Amino acid sequence: MNDFSFKITGKDKNTRARAGILTTPCGKILTPAFVPVATKAAVKGMDFNRLEEIGFDILMVNTYHLFLRPGHKVVAKAGGLHKFANWRRPLMTDSGGFQVFSLGFGLEHGVGKIGFFPGKTKAAAPGRKKLVEIDEEGASFVSFLDGSRHRITPEKSIEIQRALGADIIFAFDECTSPLASYEYTAQATARTHRWAKRCLKVFKGGSQAMFGIVQGGAYKDLRIESARVIGAMPFFGIGVGGSLGKTKREMRRVLDWTLPVLPEEKPRHLLGIGEISDIFEAVERGADLFDCVIPTRLARHGVALTKKGRVNLANGKFLTDQKPIEKECLCQTCRKHSRAYLSHLTRSKEILGIMLLTEHNLFFMKKLMTDVRQAILDGGFSAFKKKMLR
Amino acid sequence: MNDFSFKITGKDKNTRARAGILTTPCGKILTPAFVPVATKAAVKGMDFNRLEEIGFDILMVNTYHLFLRPGHKVVAKAGGLHKFANWRRPLMTDSGGFQVFSLGFGLEHGVGKIGFFPGKTKAAAPGRKKLVEIDEEGASFVSFLDGSRHRITPEKSIEIQRALGADIIFAFDECTSPLASYEYTAQATARTHRWAKRCLKVFKGGSQAMFGIVQGGAYKDLRIESARVIGAMPFFGIGVGGSLGKTKREMRRVLDWTLPVLPEEKPRHLLGIGEISDIFEAVERGADLFDCVIPTRLARHGVALTKKGRVNLANGKFLTDQKPIEKECLCQTCRKHSRAYLSHLTRSKEILGIMLLTEHNLFFMKKLMTDVRQAILDGGFSAFKKKMLR
Repeated sequence: MNDFSFKITGKDKNTRARAGILTTPCGKILTPAFVPVATKAAVKGMDFNRLEEIGFDILMVNTYHLFLRPGHKVVAKAGGLHKFANWRRPLMTDSGGFQVFSLGFGLEHGVGKIGFFPGKTKAAAPGRKKLVEIDEEGASFVSFLDGSRHRITPEKSIEIQRALGADIIFAFDECTSPLASYEYTAQATARTHRWAKRCLKVFKGGSQAMFGIVQGGAYKDLRIESARVIGAMPFFGIGVGGSLGKTKREMRRVLDWTLPVLPEEKPRHLLGIGEISDIFEAVERGADLFDCVIPTRLARHGVALTKKGRVNLANGKFLTDQKPIEKECLCQTCRKHSRAYLSHLTRSKEILGIMLLTEHNLFFMKKLMTDVRQAILDGGFSAFKKKMLR
Repeated sequence: MNDFSFKITGKDKNTRARAGILTTPCGKILTPAFVPVATKAAVKGMDFNRLEEIGFDILMVNTYHLFLRPGHKVVAKAGGLHKFANWRRPLMTDSGGFQVFSLGFGLEHGVGKIGFFPGKTKAAAPGRKKLVEIDEEGASFVSFLDGSRHRITPEKSIEIQRALGADIIFAFDECTSPLASYEYTAQATARTHRWAKRCLKVFKGGSQAMFGIVQGGAYKDLRIESARVIGAMPFFGIGVGGSLGKTKREMRRVLDWTLPVLPEEKPRHLLGIGEISDIFEAVERGADLFDCVIPTRLARHGVALTKKGRVNLANGKFLTDQKPIEKECLCQTCRKHSRAYLSHLTRSKEILGIMLLTEHNLFFMKKLMTDVRQAILDGGFSAFKKKMLR
């Protein structure tokens, strides 16, 4: 872990916002940073050359997906993720815990990403068996690809993540449902802490650094306790996972409880967070890293991120709008193409539409984070936040 | 039409193969040329920057698709296809005739691209009404998008193509089924000739040049007659459309009948032809231009074109193959990525897999045509053909 460091290079005077440099053996990450998600070792709709040109320092790859297909051993055979995908800059892998959530309570409560049943947020999905069983040792689950049975334990998660070979890995956690009871969440959080210790025990370091994950749902004492426990363990950085509440207000409260308890000097990653207003609230409270599929997923649905909010190009009114998405945007899409053309591509479900909107949305996110960072360094974060969230 | 010219710059000594330069107001096309298909004003899986970098001189856009969505008036409002899609090099639009075939006899005989029913090549698709009616005036059809009724006549096709504004347009033809009787094909071919005259009558020239289309199915006398009639009309170039027979041998025969009858000095475009062996046979017989969706469609199905034939990367055996698709290939995909990674992307149905294979396949086609042209100019076409089709 000697090749890893995190240096805070600037702090906002009025808030807890901070700018930093996270150094890994593969390169530096300027924080606050948005981390595009390359779920299956590929960012949907954009190639690596362009991700590099836009300036992304690091990508997030999902352990669970690669474990099931093509299998971590296939990736290891290629020499790890960097060689497999030919991306030389830093990479992080999650622990697989979020997918345990998605397949377990997610299915049961209808709130997971995988197996999401609209309108079923309180009842279990009818006729569906829970696809995961959690015990003290780990989690057993059924593959969504072929129904085969698998088991991930903390030790197994670290073994898989070592085979994948990302620079930053995450401890295996149980991501509880936002609908879980206090009692269940308390039990699960305590288990996550025990799992965190087991992850540290088998973690070999070398060219990898590990983040622990704070859980605790939307319960104040559990979050504070989890932040204290995970914060005190010898992790390189801290992830904040699980439910951050059901509203933006609840999310702010969870962050208000959690982040101040964490050791100042460690980088903090908010898992799965990426809405623009959420990023501002989290940066203001001292978060450094964010990964989220929203910018790329929106692109696949024809939605562009802009300073004035989301623009749904599938709307037919844009078919005769010859302006770019944003006049002042310097992305390749805005330099070259009109809303009219993008609207046509979106409505025609053309792959090029996805590609061009992914370019815009990721360029937008990179620019946003660059500006956020500069605002912190310049002492103008609050003013910038106010301007952007107006 | 003064800005259009076609100059034959080299001829093969042993065959009818020729190299030429087709000049349009938007730029030059070196022939023989492969024309990527941008069906709905977009090449699936590749952006325009990269098409330009690879060196494609011209793209083919489908009139029928743009007529239905977004509508030629929307494109005209943007200033025509070049501005709409922001592609400054030459463009061609087809006449819509092929889609008449696909929706009419195609559906009835089960051989069309749209509404293709596997295993139903001889019987009509059960329970499906023919979606097109052809009369002397034109063709009436039902939109595959929303069931709305439309009518295209020769005059309307030219009007639509003028609104779209491609550099090269095609006369409206009836593309008969390979299963059509001699009598029907004869009637339809004669009608196509009458339609060709009507297209010329309303064609205004200006910044557009028009190709007539030879039909006649796989019937010798009809093909020869059609080549004679269309060849004698004042078209800038000649398209060869319709069924070229059911086997490669029949295709060669159709070309042997047709191409020698055509005026030597006019460019000849083979519509919808793009398999590598077909291109060699057609170039050898004096064809200059080819458009085909095969290279891009194969990419979407995980298939790469190589000098040794097609490689299906979905095959699991490639998951541990760390070599590029082709060692000597200079495309960005072969420079950067392994078969293992491409196999993973293909099996995972990742958009990036489509993008990377489209890059390879189109790069392959461009390189092939550059080599074909050079071989003609160097007097080595037959040797090159032999080597490539070995």
